[in-house]
Amino acid sequence: MNIPRTSYPRVIIIGGGFAGVSLAKKLSKQEVQVVLLDKNNYHTFQPLLYQVSTGGLEPDSIAYPIRKILKNFPNFHFRLAEVNEINSENNYVKTGIGDLKFDYLVVASGSKTNYFGNSEIEKYSMAMKTIPQSLNLRSLILENFEDALLTSDLHERNALMNFVIVGGGPTGVELAGALAEIKKGILPKDYPDLDTRSAQIHIVQSSGCLLKGMSKKASRKAEDFLEKLGVNIWKNVRVTNYDGKTVTTNTDLTFKAATVVWAAGVKGATIKGLDAEDFITRGNRLEVNTFNQVKGFEHIFAIGDIACMATEDTPYGLPMMAQPAIQQGDQLGDNMLRLIEKQSLKPFVYNDKGAMATIGRNKAVVDLPKFKFQGVFAWFVWMFVHLFFLIGFRNRMVVFVNWLYNYVRFDREARLIIRPFKNKKGFN
Amino acid sequence: MNIPRTSYPRVIIIGGGFAGVSLAKKLSKQEVQVVLLDKNNYHTFQPLLYQVSTGGLEPDSIAYPIRKILKNFPNFHFRLAEVNEINSENNYVKTGIGDLKFDYLVVASGSKTNYFGNSEIEKYSMAMKTIPQSLNLRSLILENFEDALLTSDLHERNALMNFVIVGGGPTGVELAGALAEIKKGILPKDYPDLDTRSAQIHIVQSSGCLLKGMSKKASRKAEDFLEKLGVNIWKNVRVTNYDGKTVTTNTDLTFKAATVVWAAGVKGATIKGLDAEDFITRGNRLEVNTFNQVKGFEHIFAIGDIACMATEDTPYGLPMMAQPAIQQGDQLGDNMLRLIEKQSLKPFVYNDKGAMATIGRNKAVVDLPKFKFQGVFAWFVWMFVHLFFLIGFRNRMVVFVNWLYNYVRFDREARLIIRPFKNKKGFN
Repeated sequence: MNIPRTSYPRVIIIGGGFAGVSLAKKLSKQEVQVVLLDKNNYHTFQPLLYQVSTGGLEPDSIAYPIRKILKNFPNFHFRLAEVNEINSENNYVKTGIGDLKFDYLVVASGSKTNYFGNSEIEKYSMAMKTIPQSLNLRSLILENFEDALLTSDLHERNALMNFVIVGGGPTGVELAGALAEIKKGILPKDYPDLDTRSAQIHIVQSSGCLLKGMSKKASRKAEDFLEKLGVNIWKNVRVTNYDGKTVTTNTDLTFKAATVVWAAGVKGATIKGLDAEDFITRGNRLEVNTFNQVKGFEHIFAIGDIACMATEDTPYGLPMMAQPAIQQGDQLGDNMLRLIEKQSLKPFVYNDKGAMATIGRNKAVVDLPKFKFQGVFAWFVWMFVHLFFLIGFRNRMVVFVNWLYNYVRFDREARLIIRPFKNKKGFN
Repeated sequence: MNIPRTSYPRVIIIGGGFAGVSLAKKLSKQEVQVVLLDKNNYHTFQPLLYQVSTGGLEPDSIAYPIRKILKNFPNFHFRLAEVNEINSENNYVKTGIGDLKFDYLVVASGSKTNYFGNSEIEKYSMAMKTIPQSLNLRSLILENFEDALLTSDLHERNALMNFVIVGGGPTGVELAGALAEIKKGILPKDYPDLDTRSAQIHIVQSSGCLLKGMSKKASRKAEDFLEKLGVNIWKNVRVTNYDGKTVTTNTDLTFKAATVVWAAGVKGATIKGLDAEDFITRGNRLEVNTFNQVKGFEHIFAIGDIACMATEDTPYGLPMMAQPAIQQGDQLGDNMLRLIEKQSLKPFVYNDKGAMATIGRNKAVVDLPKFKFQGVFAWFVWMFVHLFFLIGFRNRMVVFVNWLYNYVRFDREARLIIRPFKNKKGFN
């Protein structure tokens, strides 16, 4: 890879998610050469992916070109590349476009869907971690409704209109709510030939409550909201398989469904060469110290979802969310400069700003450290916070216009099958 | 296909473009059963596709779900289906989802890119007639710039940054202008490592002027504008081949280019069963009379690009543009009701409202029947007219926000490689 060496030390950042971008922004102003590698040329605002899947937002308005985020920094270099291997002995990374040496390496490769080894679920269910995946899900949902019109077999038709969401975390809850609103507000108008009342939305959660990481009140209220929207909630049920037609569980419960969304877990997206058992902890994450240094290294770091920083409160690491990633990226920026200048490093302290989830129109739950609330106000807070954290003024405006429109008109207009999905995956 | 018969006569419309939608809107309020068939679930606003290719607009904001356009009409049925054959003897169509009988048939299948039999050009060049094609072009442009960073071979790098647009009609002119603005305003910021001055944009036109269908003044002015933007215009040059690397012409001129856009011609998208030589005229269009009846039929019609209605002024049919399509669809709606009520039909008279093309920021050319003008005012008129004709309030708002942003910030933000294109097509 032809990036010329300068007199500055070179920092390679793997991944342009919340953690990587936060770090790059901090470092690029300083006397270091920053090389950010990502397999996409854009940063994805993952918390809003479910709105892409359900036609509420265009994909382009929740993604942002990485080059543009960092266009004013002369020491910043972006390369569109997948990193295949890390060589921590000779300090270089192997990528699809060649090798590159580093002085410091930061792994910010994030997380990927965890199927817990079940290849059938991996093959037949839909994930929602990336923009292409979200667009595939949008296509599948719409294609299934078009197909439901064509069959006279009642069971088949119901299966085409059944949605099973596995996992009751924020992703599952938000998606279920959005689907329920589509069922109520859009399907009857779009498909007058179809009895869309038989469309069913199921959310299956292995533990005893939804939104496990949030307060009990938030969890209970989210359930209430979902039930009011007609979502079927199955708690203490674990999905054991999905063969493309039937979802089986560890109970007698089964579902015939053409759309199954797997939102039941993620794991660290480790990279060859830095995936030996000594570093890896629960959830396939890299064990780091409070300076985000990967165990055993001084010049190799991990931040965000991939990093497992165990503390007394969080023995299995911080939650895999945007906030810890942003904060770690920011803090590591300071620490790396200290390291280069041979100063002592400052330990990372997570500032928990709380958590929130939206269930639907006027329905959200917000847990702030000192204040927990649910309902209309929470919903406005949720919108404001998400608009605020979106990158780019245009994105904010476009998202705002869309939300305003969707709110006033009870509508979601981005329901286009631009890339048909079903035939590609070998569905019938 | 299970669409129940009613006491109303059934009209099948093939194609949800300008013509088909215009007709469906007119008919769906009347005592006819309307079945619209399209292989996409959305209507595409083709005049703005070049803005999708160049990152100025999201695809979702220039497309609109067909079901939504016609959601309030009880006699309207949409089916997502490709029509494979028309049986005009027994009055049914064969589609991918089964057969369907009709009382009246309207072919509004539009046009497709005409490669004039050159399979290499078809294989290696890019077209821009559909949303997926426009997104592919967007990806290719961005991928080529990423690749240009990786090569140290000067010739290869230049080829990756060379754009050849074949055809100097509105599509070619508008795309060339948009690319020139990207070259000037965005590339130097996005790719500081790259000497983007060597990026070249060529427009190759077989005849002696650009925008052949417009006034001489518009044509001359468009050339001026493009030249000011640094576009190389080659007139009286015909492209003879493109093998994926080199564009050859009927002169000594050749171009080494990784991106070639073929905008040099379209032809009617005929359908098997109604493509016998007796109906087909120049440009592969169906010959129709002034009532849009396909030659030899009383109950089979063609409207829009696919229809060739020869008049004294236009011996080869009306121009293949939105306006004739919309007007024919509208008029045919009236005529079909007259036909059903056994009244005499009214001949179609084209109301030529003029033509326009935009070249760039503050630069457009407008030919109205009585008034021709160019420059800033023309550019505002162009924007206003395009916003007005877009379907959907949300689309208009989102497009407006984007244009405002792009104007104020000299930017185009939707430059994401969401579906990588190159590897799929077998480029290296």
